[in-house]
Amino acid sequence: MKILVIHGPNLNLLGSRETAVYGDETLEAIDEQCSALAKELGVSIEIRQSNSEGEIVDLIQGAGHDAKGIVINPGAYTHYSYAIRDALAAVKLPAVEVHLSNIYSREEFRHISVIAPVAAGQISGFGADSYLLGLRAVVGLIRNA
Amino acid sequence: MKILVIHGPNLNLLGSRETAVYGDETLEAIDEQCSALAKELGVSIEIRQSNSEGEIVDLIQGAGHDAKGIVINPGAYTHYSYAIRDALAAVKLPAVEVHLSNIYSREEFRHISVIAPVAAGQISGFGADSYLLGLRAVVGLIRNA
Amino acid sequence: MKILVIHGPNLNLLGSRETAVYGDETLEAIDEQCSALAKELGVSIEIRQSNSEGEIVDLIQGAGHDAKGIVINPGAYTHYSYAIRDALAAVKLPAVEVHLSNIYSREEFRHISVIAPVAAGQISGFGADSYLLGLRAVVGLIRNA
Amino acid sequence: MKILVIHGPNLNLLGSRETAVYGDETLEAIDEQCSALAKELGVSIEIRQSNSEGEIVDLIQGAGHDAKGIVINPGAYTHYSYAIRDALAAVKLPAVEVHLSNIYSREEFRHISVIAPVAAGQISGFGADSYLLGLRAVVGLIRNA
Amino acid sequence: MKILVIHGPNLNLLGSRETAVYGDETLEAIDEQCSALAKELGVSIEIRQSNSEGEIVDLIQGAGHDAKGIVINPGAYTHYSYAIRDALAAVKLPAVEVHLSNIYSREEFRHISVIAPVAAGQISGFGADSYLLGLRAVVGLIRNA
Amino acid sequence: MKILVIHGPNLNLLGSRETAVYGDETLEAIDEQCSALAKELGVSIEIRQSNSEGEIVDLIQGAGHDAKGIVINPGAYTHYSYAIRDALAAVKLPAVEVHLSNIYSREEFRHISVIAPVAAGQISGFGADSYLLGLRAVVGLIRNA
Amino acid sequence: MKILVIHGPNLNLLGSRETAVYGDETLEAIDEQCSALAKELGVSIEIRQSNSEGEIVDLIQGAGHDAKGIVINPGAYTHYSYAIRDALAAVKLPAVEVHLSNIYSREEFRHISVIAPVAAGQISGFGADSYLLGLRAVVGLIRNA
Amino acid sequence: MKILVIHGPNLNLLGSRETAVYGDETLEAIDEQCSALAKELGVSIEIRQSNSEGEIVDLIQGAGHDAKGIVINPGAYTHYSYAIRDALAAVKLPAVEVHLSNIYSREEFRHISVIAPVAAGQISGFGADSYLLGLRAVVGLIRNA
Amino acid sequence: MKILVIHGPNLNLLGSRETAVYGDETLEAIDEQCSALAKELGVSIEIRQSNSEGEIVDLIQGAGHDAKGIVINPGAYTHYSYAIRDALAAVKLPAVEVHLSNIYSREEFRHISVIAPVAAGQISGFGADSYLLGLRAVVGLIRNA
Amino acid sequence: MKILVIHGPNLNLLGSRETAVYGDETLEAIDEQCSALAKELGVSIEIRQSNSEGEIVDLIQGAGHDAKGIVINPGAYTHYSYAIRDALAAVKLPAVEVHLSNIYSREEFRHISVIAPVAAGQISGFGADSYLLGLRAVVGLIRNA
Amino acid sequence: MKILVIHGPNLNLLGSRETAVYGDETLEAIDEQCSALAKELGVSIEIRQSNSEGEIVDLIQGAGHDAKGIVINPGAYTHYSYAIRDALAAVKLPAVEVHLSNIYSREEFRHISVIAPVAAGQISGFGADSYLLGLRAVVGLIRNA
Amino acid sequence: MKILVIHGPNLNLLGSRETAVYGDETLEAIDEQCSALAKELGVSIEIRQSNSEGEIVDLIQGAGHDAKGIVINPGAYTHYSYAIRDALAAVKLPAVEVHLSNIYSREEFRHISVIAPVAAGQISGFGADSYLLGLRAVVGLIRNA
Repeated sequence: MKILVIHGPNLNLLGSRETAVYGDETLEAIDEQCSALAKELGVSIEIRQSNSEGEIVDLIQGAGHDAKGIVINPGAYTHYSYAIRDALAAVKLPAVEVHLSNIYSREEFRHISVIAPVAAGQISGFGADSYLLGLRAVVGLIRNA
Repeated sequence: MKILVIHGPNLNLLGSRETAVYGDETLEAIDEQCSALAKELGVSIEIRQSNSEGEIVDLIQGAGHDAKGIVINPGAYTHYSYAIRDALAAVKLPAVEVHLSNIYSREEFRHISVIAPVAAGQISGFGADSYLLGLRAVVGLIRNA
Repeated sequence: MKILVIHGPNLNLLGSRETAVYGDETLEAIDEQCSALAKELGVSIEIRQSNSEGEIVDLIQGAGHDAKGIVINPGAYTHYSYAIRDALAAVKLPAVEVHLSNIYSREEFRHISVIAPVAAGQISGFGADSYLLGLRAVVGLIRNA
Repeated sequence: MKILVIHGPNLNLLGSRETAVYGDETLEAIDEQCSALAKELGVSIEIRQSNSEGEIVDLIQGAGHDAKGIVINPGAYTHYSYAIRDALAAVKLPAVEVHLSNIYSREEFRHISVIAPVAAGQISGFGADSYLLGLRAVVGLIRNA
Repeated sequence: MKILVIHGPNLNLLGSRETAVYGDETLEAIDEQCSALAKELGVSIEIRQSNSEGEIVDLIQGAGHDAKGIVINPGAYTHYSYAIRDALAAVKLPAVEVHLSNIYSREEFRHISVIAPVAAGQISGFGADSYLLGLRAVVGLIRNA
Repeated sequence: MKILVIHGPNLNLLGSRETAVYGDETLEAIDEQCSALAKELGVSIEIRQSNSEGEIVDLIQGAGHDAKGIVINPGAYTHYSYAIRDALAAVKLPAVEVHLSNIYSREEFRHISVIAPVAAGQISGFGADSYLLGLRAVVGLIRNA
Repeated sequence: MKILVIHGPNLNLLGSRETAVYGDETLEAIDEQCSALAKELGVSIEIRQSNSEGEIVDLIQGAGHDAKGIVINPGAYTHYSYAIRDALAAVKLPAVEVHLSNIYSREEFRHISVIAPVAAGQISGFGADSYLLGLRAVVGLIRNA
Repeated sequence: MKILVIHGPNLNLLGSRETAVYGDETLEAIDEQCSALAKELGVSIEIRQSNSEGEIVDLIQGAGHDAKGIVINPGAYTHYSYAIRDALAAVKLPAVEVHLSNIYSREEFRHISVIAPVAAGQISGFGADSYLLGLRAVVGLIRNA
Repeated sequence: MKILVIHGPNLNLLGSRETAVYGDETLEAIDEQCSALAKELGVSIEIRQSNSEGEIVDLIQGAGHDAKGIVINPGAYTHYSYAIRDALAAVKLPAVEVHLSNIYSREEFRHISVIAPVAAGQISGFGADSYLLGLRAVVGLIRNA
Repeated sequence: MKILVIHGPNLNLLGSRETAVYGDETLEAIDEQCSALAKELGVSIEIRQSNSEGEIVDLIQGAGHDAKGIVINPGAYTHYSYAIRDALAAVKLPAVEVHLSNIYSREEFRHISVIAPVAAGQISGFGADSYLLGLRAVVGLIRNA
Repeated sequence: MKILVIHGPNLNLLGSRETAVYGDETLEAIDEQCSALAKELGVSIEIRQSNSEGEIVDLIQGAGHDAKGIVINPGAYTHYSYAIRDALAAVKLPAVEVHLSNIYSREEFRHISVIAPVAAGQISGFGADSYLLGLRAVVGLIRNA
Repeated sequence: MKILVIHGPNLNLLGSRETAVYGDETLEAIDEQCSALAKELGVSIEIRQSNSEGEIVDLIQGAGHDAKGIVINPGAYTHYSYAIRDALAAVKLPAVEVHLSNIYSREEFRHISVIAPVAAGQISGFGADSYLLGLRAVVGLIRNA
């Protein structure tokens, strides 16, 4: 069982900048924790980062061929990318939307997710743990399906 | 380390009604899973259900004395109870807001949570697993604090 | 066949106050008319009043065990209690929402009912007669079901 | 004592189409029930249907000469005809607005009635019974005036 | 197979007035092109114009008896006539909404069509060709049904 | 030089009803004053009343053949009839919109005129004098053109 | 009987600038026409112009002592000066709001008048004639009072 | 003359928590100052705190029997409790709404008070002094009535 | 310690006009009560009235040199004068916003105060007493600072 | 004469997924029909699909060099891509916006097209036929230009 | 060539107050830099400050006689003074709107400029440099005209 | 000291198209002026254009390694690209947002910049000079930091 983990725009800068908001863990550190947990849960994962909306649509479409679930942090695209939303709806894999910070206690525009209505569920506010909880959640969804 | 789990209004009906939306697990079954996971994580939990907004405010205030964190499913109060929000803000314990269903793919009025801005994070859409992920999340927050 | 009649907040003050808006009939007088009509229609009724949102949720949940229909005047809760709405949706009994005054010719905030979408129907503007018409309506719904 | 019953646009199609929403009773069947109840209540009724807004205004103005009350189902005009509203306000007869279906559980635009603020009251959601309850209600208003 | 073509309010003035917006073709010229194309496509057409909302509702209801599809340019009624919308929904014939001009590059109020949600599709911005494309479209819908 | 004066819906009831808002002058009395002033100004007038939106569109289109200007009180259609607006825009005669009462100190929905943007000007609040001032205004516009 | 005529901000520039919108008549020319008509109607007038909101409030308050009516073109203050509105409401003289251009066919923000609800009536769109019609209107109001 | 002082939800936590926003005075200290001022003003007071909306409605209804005025800090209920508003409107005692902090310089949702339209007046922003000023105000209202 | 009391636009008309809304006390009477209370509280006061927004900005700036606090009734400027707001924010003296009437039970536009977010607090609804309570409040703020 | 046909994001998935909404025709099948019709109409076509907004902008800019018209289904970008809108406006070729489904009977956010105001016209709701009608429409526009 | 520089309300307080937002440079220091740059650019400048909206309108009107361009910081009037906007539109000199701070990263109400649509351009966020860049910009506009 | 200049979507078409809005200068001409001014100011610049949102995010992230400031014209992305906004916020270099035209005097959707709140400042409306003023501004910000 393969899970695709997608990091959206600007997440490649994690750890070196804006540590007050996003913490000082690097994306590499998060990826390692995800890989470790995947191993523990007995699933394989593929992890990708992209700053481009079209590329993320491509990644999601590609997941339709060999993955069983998606964990996605759409970054700023969360708030306006109906193209990513449509891609998720089209591939019909269970997808879990995750956010490092609590998007509901930040700026007004971050309170709206256009992705959430087509995701299976949403997890936000726990830093790197949001990814780990998301991985557990998507595996649970697949195993209970 | 004690965690308070609060079930809001109408959750006592779980399992016997509207199973298409909420699943057929009873609240008791969820509570048992929470207790089992608490044991595994090495924490104690207290679980309470109430249909009354004022009573939930009382529960939260009470948690200030002996609990270290809160997992709360505020049910319908999610969308308008500023009293519960103020109580959570006042006790300053890390609180995780959980929902059985994905509130973002339901009616418009369920897309807004007045609780979320003062919660540490939010988890929605994974059925009973939302509570289990929430319990893991709040324990993680306390241990990393 | 039992029908539950619920009077929401401040309705216990009927008859002694604000008679220009609500008429000078007391709640007791209305209850007597309901009882008489119930007898005529061959149904039993239970009548309850409460100022508390949580208590009204409890009453509705309780109706799920022995009543066949609900006539409810949610008073001010009409305009914001999603908890009462969820309770009505959960018990799935036919429920008729009634109002003494025409809520559409009063203040703006009284034009919106969050209860109406889950009620079977709504009757407003006929004073005590709103309850009697509501009782006839709910009995009709049950007998035609 | 004469009561005018007005059926608005598209109600002449009742019974043969969209029976899932409006039931399979024809308008003629409803009219017969209204006539029977009128007889029982000791009042005469005149029943009219029109698809034209201007014609409905004419009917209401005409009612000012010989009717004592109005039962009106304004159909789609409910949501925008200020001309019908003004006509009702001008003739000052007690008018009861009725709807076959619960307009509050349908599309957003059907939640707003521009007629309701000048009607004596509103009854919606009980199928043909909405007319019968409306007839009872308007007779009650006239006799209690 | 008969198709009903309906021209809404003020379209009878075409060609002699406001030629900058609507072109200098008369309604008669458009009707001739429609007739010619109908012949080519092997269908019969009936063409009607009315300035009255109620009359257009009557026309649509009448189409229910002998036509198989509708091409309608509702003119200004596009933006507020829920009565015409309800009539189209009631007769359940495939209906194509057409507009001479691109309604989305004109005044704000012309951007909203209350008809579109119940039409099979919409074609706007091609002058007289909008009708011809609409005729092709409705015939396609009927033949593919 | 002929001027067309159009009275919209419910204005035929003037003088006998709602005299607190509209005064106790009848429509006939207003028409006589208009005729007298027309004579004084050396113009002929034709005066028409209709409760039907479609008929008012017809009247305006007809004015295009022999009248030089229009004085119109669109009544309740003021607030939503884009069909009347389009007719006025199409005939391109100078049109003056008049109202007996000050529409800006009444209900919210009466503050918006969809007619005003295509009228030459608007006069409201002076009772019967609104028509007389409107007649003077339209004659001034024609003579100064 | 004295009438106060108030010209609001920027009206002193009339005739020399933006003649496409406001015409090429100067304010002096308008004032002369007002004076001539006042003479004809047998009333005296005082004419004032100010660019300052506070000064216009002073002028209106002063009118309370010796004038019987006010004709006011509030210019841009039309759209936001609640201070001028309150002054007009306080002195309770009949006031007619006039505008040279049709404010409803210009920018969105000019469609709202905060003055109109407390004015007796409004006249807009007739150039200098707006003042003359306004003078006639206010004299009519005073004589009919 | 008895005055009822009502403290709404979460005010029992005053002094020990969130002292940056609410100051470090306890509710007991405020109550003592109120009692002292009551004595100085020659009135008796009863002071109650509740986290429950229904209970606060009960308290207000009870005040109708023996109190002459109400000082109420509705806490978070300020922003949505139409039930408390209706209770205040029903008992018709002069009521003064008070707030410790300036609700207009906090979060958006705290800018709206649904209580204020039925209160005699509102005092906010002066810490414990808001209560003392409120007590003076309500006594002044009663004595001047 | 000097306190500046500022009366905004139209307040100079108090007592002689609109007594139903504002009471029949003159501004002079209010000023005398303020002076008496100031004496009792051991502070000096300067009282100013102006109808001009710019002048009120000047007064507030001037207060920065010798006053210790401000009591201001901004009248209609309450609802839109960001210039007065900025002046108050700039001088940083404690300022209390007062209103004679309860602005929350009047027209919609009076419910919004652009001044309140920068004032220390707000008092409304107690007639002349609003000033006296405001004077006490500002003195309390200064003495407790 | 060359026409560029652009398929936006996720349209490459057509036929294999979400067939209930989009039908079971593959994009290849649609492309073949377009090619056949192009041949019939005597024009050449180039067909491109892309999931990337920037790439679609590039395609449109490129069309400026050798194509005479554009048929574009912008997919989800319809609702927010001002970059694609600006590209279409810049190249000034006649462009026809097409949609497989009726975007006006789907989710709220799909009712708004930011592309439509700069397109020549819009066709939606006819499945693959939308493309064929669009091709006819654009060829008609070019030939009639 | 003369340029008029206008400083709006509260800018006279610069340098002595709120230095965290506006910097610690005084208005005199800014004026000196402007004068120096004017000299360098070979233009003369006149610099004026006013707290009064009416006075600023007067200044702009006056500029029509001898200045060739305007640099204006309208302060708080930026957000609501349609009178200043109209004055700028009337004199038709190229005007550059400048702001010391980035108005788009401050309170919501500061994001809207009613002045910007009639200015030639806008410069915000560079402290005193905003004036210097504005002076360069307006000189550029005049020389390139 | 290196400055990165970024041209957003469609700016590569400058000079050859829509010259009425954007002028007839080509992007190359603007780039040359920027290079010349950079030389004069003693800084190096790198100039890049892209139609792709993701690529612009990449460019901004790259600037974090060797540039000291950014001048960016985000074109249509100005109005919705939170991804570009987040990239600018993340790299924390001073960034100046520039626009050739005055975005506030164009279509409504161009009045909102989601970039502005994180930019140091904004300059719009001066054609190619906007870039030159922006370059001066960003160099000033860096040297004064």
